Amino acid sequence: MSILQRTNNPDDLKSLKTSEFSELADEIRDMIISTISNSGGHLASSLGVVELTIALLHTFDMNKDKLIWDVGHQCYAHKILTGRRDQFSTIRQCSGLSGFPKLAECEYDSFGTGHASTSISAALGMAKARDLKKEGFKVIAVIGDGSLTGGMAFEALNHAGHTRTDMIVILNDNELSISPTVGGFLQHLDEFRTSQAYNRFRREVADSLTAFSKSAARLVKKIEESAKTLLVDNMMFESLGFRYFGPISGHNIPNLINILQRVKEIKGPLIIHVVTEKGKGYKFAEKDPTRFHSASPFCVTDGSDIKKSGSISYTNAFSHALVDLASKDERIIAITAAMLDGTGVGEFKEKFPDRCFDVGIAEQHAVTFSAGLASQGMKPVFAVYSTFLQRGYDQIVHDVCLQNLPVVFALDRAGLVGADGPTHHGTFDIAYLRHIPNMIIMAPKDEAELQNMLKTAVDCNSPCAIRYPRGEGVGVAMPKEVISLPVGKAEVIRDGNDILILAIGSMVYPAVDASEILEKHGISATVVNARFVKPLDKNLLLPLISRIGKVVTVEEHSLACGFGSAVSEMIVESELFSETHIKHIGIPDQFIEHGDRKVLLRNLGLSSEGIAKTVMEMLGVSNEQTLVMQDVRC
Amino acid sequence: MSILQRTNNPDDLKSLKTSEFSELADEIRDMIISTISNSGGHLASSLGVVELTIALLHTFDMNKDKLIWDVGHQCYAHKILTGRRDQFSTIRQCSGLSGFPKLAECEYDSFGTGHASTSISAALGMAKARDLKKEGFKVIAVIGDGSLTGGMAFEALNHAGHTRTDMIVILNDNELSISPTVGGFLQHLDEFRTSQAYNRFRREVADSLTAFSKSAARLVKKIEESAKTLLVDNMMFESLGFRYFGPISGHNIPNLINILQRVKEIKGPLIIHVVTEKGKGYKFAEKDPTRFHSASPFCVTDGSDIKKSGSISYTNAFSHALVDLASKDERIIAITAAMLDGTGVGEFKEKFPDRCFDVGIAEQHAVTFSAGLASQGMKPVFAVYSTFLQRGYDQIVHDVCLQNLPVVFALDRAGLVGADGPTHHGTFDIAYLRHIPNMIIMAPKDEAELQNMLKTAVDCNSPCAIRYPRGEGVGVAMPKEVISLPVGKAEVIRDGNDILILAIGSMVYPAVDASEILEKHGISATVVNARFVKPLDKNLLLPLISRIGKVVTVEEHSLACGFGSAVSEMIVESELFSETHIKHIGIPDQFIEHGDRKVLLRNLGLSSEGIAKTVMEMLGVSNEQTLVMQDVRC
Repeated sequence: MSILQRTNNPDDLKSLKTSEFSELADEIRDMIISTISNSGGHLASSLGVVELTIALLHTFDMNKDKLIWDVGHQCYAHKILTGRRDQFSTIRQCSGLSGFPKLAECEYDSFGTGHASTSISAALGMAKARDLKKEGFKVIAVIGDGSLTGGMAFEALNHAGHTRTDMIVILNDNELSISPTVGGFLQHLDEFRTSQAYNRFRREVADSLTAFSKSAARLVKKIEESAKTLLVDNMMFESLGFRYFGPISGHNIPNLINILQRVKEIKGPLIIHVVTEKGKGYKFAEKDPTRFHSASPFCVTDGSDIKKSGSISYTNAFSHALVDLASKDERIIAITAAMLDGTGVGEFKEKFPDRCFDVGIAEQHAVTFSAGLASQGMKPVFAVYSTFLQRGYDQIVHDVCLQNLPVVFALDRAGLVGADGPTHHGTFDIAYLRHIPNMIIMAPKDEAELQNMLKTAVDCNSPCAIRYPRGEGVGVAMPKEVISLPVGKAEVIRDGNDILILAIGSMVYPAVDASEILEKHGISATVVNARFVKPLDKNLLLPLISRIGKVVTVEEHSLACGFGSAVSEMIVESELFSETHIKHIGIPDQFIEHGDRKVLLRNLGLSSEGIAKTVMEMLGVSNEQTLVMQDVRC
Repeated sequence: MSILQRTNNPDDLKSLKTSEFSELADEIRDMIISTISNSGGHLASSLGVVELTIALLHTFDMNKDKLIWDVGHQCYAHKILTGRRDQFSTIRQCSGLSGFPKLAECEYDSFGTGHASTSISAALGMAKARDLKKEGFKVIAVIGDGSLTGGMAFEALNHAGHTRTDMIVILNDNELSISPTVGGFLQHLDEFRTSQAYNRFRREVADSLTAFSKSAARLVKKIEESAKTLLVDNMMFESLGFRYFGPISGHNIPNLINILQRVKEIKGPLIIHVVTEKGKGYKFAEKDPTRFHSASPFCVTDGSDIKKSGSISYTNAFSHALVDLASKDERIIAITAAMLDGTGVGEFKEKFPDRCFDVGIAEQHAVTFSAGLASQGMKPVFAVYSTFLQRGYDQIVHDVCLQNLPVVFALDRAGLVGADGPTHHGTFDIAYLRHIPNMIIMAPKDEAELQNMLKTAVDCNSPCAIRYPRGEGVGVAMPKEVISLPVGKAEVIRDGNDILILAIGSMVYPAVDASEILEKHGISATVVNARFVKPLDKNLLLPLISRIGKVVTVEEHSLACGFGSAVSEMIVESELFSETHIKHIGIPDQFIEHGDRKVLLRNLGLSSEGIAKTVMEMLGVSNEQTLVMQDVRC
């Protein structure tokens, strides 16, 4: 029986011999690599913290202490060692383990994460609750150097330092956040890391290991003093009220355990600076940690992607159009918040390095920075995942829309993202954008229309958002030359008299397919590609609604405050309700779990069959036998 | 003719003699004090930067350089000196000057502000645009020490430092943000300020003024070295890539001008640390800058408030209920983001200092900190203005609602706030909250119901928001003992058959008054106090809608995604749409300017007369002569 097989919960780690740790780490790595090569997932970050996870779970008492993983994509070893080893193969799949820490999944997940920079705030809240309840547990937040660029982490450090709260922040300095790190502060870490003094210090720490049997106080003092000497130029943490220890290697388990055990009884807020290597232990991930950050299924032996044949992705369509437009208009600027490749801005950066800004994990700043650019006549395009732009909501209201500045928001991963689950689904963007005056909102039916919409957005001289889904396009031919679409104009795709289907974005093709199913049942549908959520095409839609009287709206978005809701608002405003029978299809008022996107959509009725079924129910047409509805379980 | 009378634009400052500056500052102060004593406004901050404003407008070329005031409430001297002297008496009034910098108002307002911590991001965007366009203007952001606690400012400093962009950040260190400053970093500034070394440095700077005629380079070097020597423990800015100068007095105009002129040609990002006194020059404001931060009209000679007789404010009702509930349940914790008094948390802090947390201007952190507290069994109540909680939207989704943690959001200033205008109106909170699963949203009809709703929120064990307006309550008797209301239950206030008026929050009493007007016209109305925006009381509402068939919803909130929109969604879901004649009254899709709240509401149809008029039009009843509608202009 392997060491891992004997390790069923964190308590079992306590009885391991020091000599067994390294073998355990290897076994965990093997399990992570083989599982993620099948399912895809956040490989590089998780491989980087295997030793750190073992050391933390060994040192602290996971039955009462609270361990919070910032972002959480590095939690795979944690899951394997906290009673979920045998379920690990289900990770990120329907009804399987979540790819992130999750309160409801396991008592060892102290706090759910998914977006960056939240861990110190949550840890401080827990620590304050502990002190008020006069309890004695420890609170540990593990945060990467990338997540530290998020202003929220600074807000929390500032508050924690001020209140002198007992808590431990582990700075997991892996030399690389999702994109290569940016920012003055991180640059400083970089310089520090490569300095001779730093390397000398590492040796000193290694030497001092032999002294570990002596008094803890002396050792801590020695570590502290050495660090302070080195860090005279880098007093960030100390100036915030934290005591700083480190840097220490994150791959030497006995060393980590020794330091954690000695440091954990120290009062007040502490920072322990741990240096890890992303992708550690899998050579292809070590070599290209960005590619293996969020990996698709891959071949373990050569690291190559197990590719599905497929169309161009929405991200690539955006990327090409952005470069094309920018080559003709030098006012176009690209902004990304540490997601250069994920959002497809990499090609732009290569072509126009001066006009591309990676601001770090800092969406608030990215929005107002874009507004500043726009105020001087530039045409900034902020490429960002729908879920991450939630961080910049206030800035969109005040700095962009109130001033009516022409910032373009290219919202990738709008709708359900699949395996990353509820922290990453982009199902609220219409809701958090459409009530803001001056905002234009579009969603393309396919990757070609996305390119035309990008030109429309850049041309329209208004705050503008384009939402498009994750993954492959529908496989249409791409436009030879992108064109501007008329703002606020919808497109009639098919004409019929029995039902009006108003679809937006990713739901346009399923709506067309649904109309074909309906035709077989003698139902003739008008299908409209709405194109614009805001402004809605009243001139086209109201006469159609008036004529047909029966309307179904379809969207890959929350029903509350969504596209259908906007259509209902328009109908109320136009006083057409009493003549209209309307139904909205979309995502109900609940968080949607992770799983295969197509399966999730089908279960929500967001498939051609689902749409057809809703229409038939609405029209009172029986669909028994003729329409086979699959009750797909994920 | 006074000096101020001769100063019509910033260019006129160039020709003033040094000896005239001090008199000009006095004249500006007199104008600010006498105007704000009548109209109310942000007195203390504006008085603190009179000399700094003169120095900046004198030194820089306001015809091309860009000056951005963070938050912007300190911009009064700027407005007076940039062509708006003669309109200054109209500030914060309908159709008058805005109380904040505003792009559309004046070419000297480079960027609109209102919420904290945005200035460095906007400045950096402008500076990058300038560099790309190969232009040569200067960009200056003035930011207070309080605004620096906002994480967004850190994000921007980090990016600016990294990119070595030419720009100037003036740190206006006035020893006091809205509440006394918090945070490890600011504590550090405090310690620094009170140190002997600091005072010695101030003397040195004063002495070196005599050397100003010598070479600028030497002086700058001297300033820099002196500062560096002193700041060895406070390298925050330098570690972020900024060059630091200061601290210098913010009330010595010749000194400020000399330093600004010498520093402005230095390349790269610069921080100039200026020490000012809030309320400077008006002894009552110097003594109590918090009271005079956002002052009501006051008597200039003794500083006393010119009070209107009135009811208890919503803020006070909240404050008393919070203390009352907390005295019986020690799990109740109060959180504020630098708005201790504004949100009514001051009384709680006095009674329960250990259970009150002022986190600084850091709403993102405040939300997740609250979630951390709730995860450990506490009952956190985050008291915050509706408009400021926009900063914490992502954290509400992910850290609170996704984990279904019982955090209470007490949203003060929900609806129109009046004189502070569009940056401060709280007209989007229903929109940005109601699509989030697990969230409960309430709005009380009066101050007594607010107290009961607070108990309801604390008892309901779910994420929960209560929105209530700015200012006085309606004057009802307060409950002797607060009670929990049944979650999701509305209240029928009046029964009638011709029209169903569904009102929420501040619009319930106007709806009742409207029903009395309607009665005089023979129209009998049912009026429902919805109490809950989410969940809506389907069991009560659907039968009423079905029976009466004609429905008007009324809310002090954006129509898009608002309460009425939620009612329409419910009607669509319940398939009652085609039988229902419905109208929504609320705020249309535009930003609402500043002005008297009652006038603004009336102009939007959100008065008893407005509601009655809408109902009568809907029912086709003529209201000529019998109902006098005033077309009130603001």
